[in-house]
Amino acid sequence: MSKNYKKINAAIIIIGNEILSGRTEEKNIKFISSWLNEKIGITVKEVRIIPDIKHEICKSVLVLSKKFDYVFTTGGIGPTHDDITASSIASAFKLKYEFNKKAYNILEKYYGKKNFNDGRKKMAKMPKSSKLILNPSSAAPGFMIRNVFCLPGVPSILNSMIENCKRYLKRGARTHSKTINYLTVESNISKEMSKIQNKYLKTVEIGSYPFFRLGRVGVSIVIRSIIKRDLEKSFNELKKVLKNKNIKLFN
Amino acid sequence: MSKNYKKINAAIIIIGNEILSGRTEEKNIKFISSWLNEKIGITVKEVRIIPDIKHEICKSVLVLSKKFDYVFTTGGIGPTHDDITASSIASAFKLKYEFNKKAYNILEKYYGKKNFNDGRKKMAKMPKSSKLILNPSSAAPGFMIRNVFCLPGVPSILNSMIENCKRYLKRGARTHSKTINYLTVESNISKEMSKIQNKYLKTVEIGSYPFFRLGRVGVSIVIRSIIKRDLEKSFNELKKVLKNKNIKLFN
Repeated sequence: MSKNYKKINAAIIIIGNEILSGRTEEKNIKFISSWLNEKIGITVKEVRIIPDIKHEICKSVLVLSKKFDYVFTTGGIGPTHDDITASSIASAFKLKYEFNKKAYNILEKYYGKKNFNDGRKKMAKMPKSSKLILNPSSAAPGFMIRNVFCLPGVPSILNSMIENCKRYLKRGARTHSKTINYLTVESNISKEMSKIQNKYLKTVEIGSYPFFRLGRVGVSIVIRSIIKRDLEKSFNELKKVLKNKNIKLFN
Repeated sequence: MSKNYKKINAAIIIIGNEILSGRTEEKNIKFISSWLNEKIGITVKEVRIIPDIKHEICKSVLVLSKKFDYVFTTGGIGPTHDDITASSIASAFKLKYEFNKKAYNILEKYYGKKNFNDGRKKMAKMPKSSKLILNPSSAAPGFMIRNVFCLPGVPSILNSMIENCKRYLKRGARTHSKTINYLTVESNISKEMSKIQNKYLKTVEIGSYPFFRLGRVGVSIVIRSIIKRDLEKSFNELKKVLKNKNIKLFN
C-alpha cells in the first residue's frame, strides 16, 4: 500500500450526565465522525459516553489516547461546577492545570474586564502546554493536549470550531462508499453478501441495514473501502449476483 | 436509606460500524436510557459504541457486565455476515453458541418451513441457556444471558421489544427531576449553582445546559435526585437565590 492508504483512527468521548440520563439527544457523534472521515480521512473506531466524574474521564482519556491516534472529547469545558474536563485531563496526564495566557486574553477581551468573573476565568484554565482551538461563536476556546482534542458539548458551537482542529491533524486515506437499496429482507441476500465480503475481506467492508419506507420493507447495502478499485469491483459483483437472483432495486 | 432508594445501574453497548462511520444517526441510547430510568428506576452510567469486531464485542461485554448491574447491547443479531453479537457473547462467556429451540420454532413458524433458510436459522442461534426477549414486530427474538440483554439495532423493532425485558429486571429507585430555564448565561450563575450543589452533594445532581432559542440565549438547569424532598429543597433554594440576584426566568 502506498502512503496514501495510511489508516489513521480516532475515538470520541462524550462527557455528560444529560446524555446518559436520556434527557438530551446526542448530536455530536455523527457530525464529528462524518467530518473526520470525509474531510481528513480519519476513521472513528470507538465512542464512549461517560458521566461528569473525574476518575471516569481520566481513565477513558488514558485508555483511548493510548489505543488510538486521536481522541476527541465533547462537553464539560464551560464555566460551571460540573465542567471538569480540563482539570481531569490535566490530572490524567499529570500536567499542571493553569491559566492559558492566550485564552485568558481572548476571554477578557470578549467579556470586558469588569464582567470577567471567576466562572468565565475558569474557561481559560487548561492543562499546561495546551494548544488552543479557537471558537468563533462564543469565544471560549477548546484545546488540544497531546493527541486529545477538547471541544464543547453544545452542537452549534462545536460545529463552528471543528475546522480549527484541522491544522493539528495528520491526513489519512479517505474511505469511499457506495450504497444501494433493494426491495428485500436481509435474510434473502445474506449468503450472497457473505460470499463477496469474504472475497474482499482485507480491503472492503460490506454492511446491510434494513429499513421501512412508505409501508415497504427494504435493505440498504453499504460498501466501504479506502481502495476505489476494490470498492467498484465488489459493488459490481454484488449487483450482478443479486440481479441474477431476481432481487429488485428499491427506488 | 430504605430499600426504595436502591440504586441499580446499567451500561449500553451500541454495536455497529454504521454508527461509528457517521452514516447512521444513533437513536437507541436516548430511548433505552429514558425507559430504564422512568419505568424501571435504573440509571445508565456508561455507553460504548464499538465496531462489528469479535474481540471488541467480547472485551466490552466482559468489562461492562462486571462493572454494572445490567448491560444492554443493540445491533448485530440479524441474519447477515456482520451480525456477530450472539456468537461473540457466547465466546466471551465461554458458552456454547447453539440453536435455541424456542427461537427456532418461532422463526420456523413465522417464515414457513420452505422459506426458513440458513440466514433466518442463524437468528435462532444464541449462547446456551439464553432467555428470549420476544419480538412483536418481526419475530426474531432478542435474548438475555447472565446480566446482558441483546436487542436489535433497528429503532422501531427495539422499541417494540423493550417492554419484554421488564420481567427480567430488578426495580430501582426512580430518579426525579426538575428543570427551570433562565434568561442568562452559565457564567453568570455558576457560583450560585456550585454552592447549592456542594450543600446537597450526596443526594442531588445539578446540571446546566446552555441553549439558543428564538435568537435569545438561555440556560436550562436540571436538578435530579432519587430523594424527592432533597430535590424540592435544592430546587427552591436555587430559585430563591437566583431571584435575589435578579436573574430572569426564560418562558
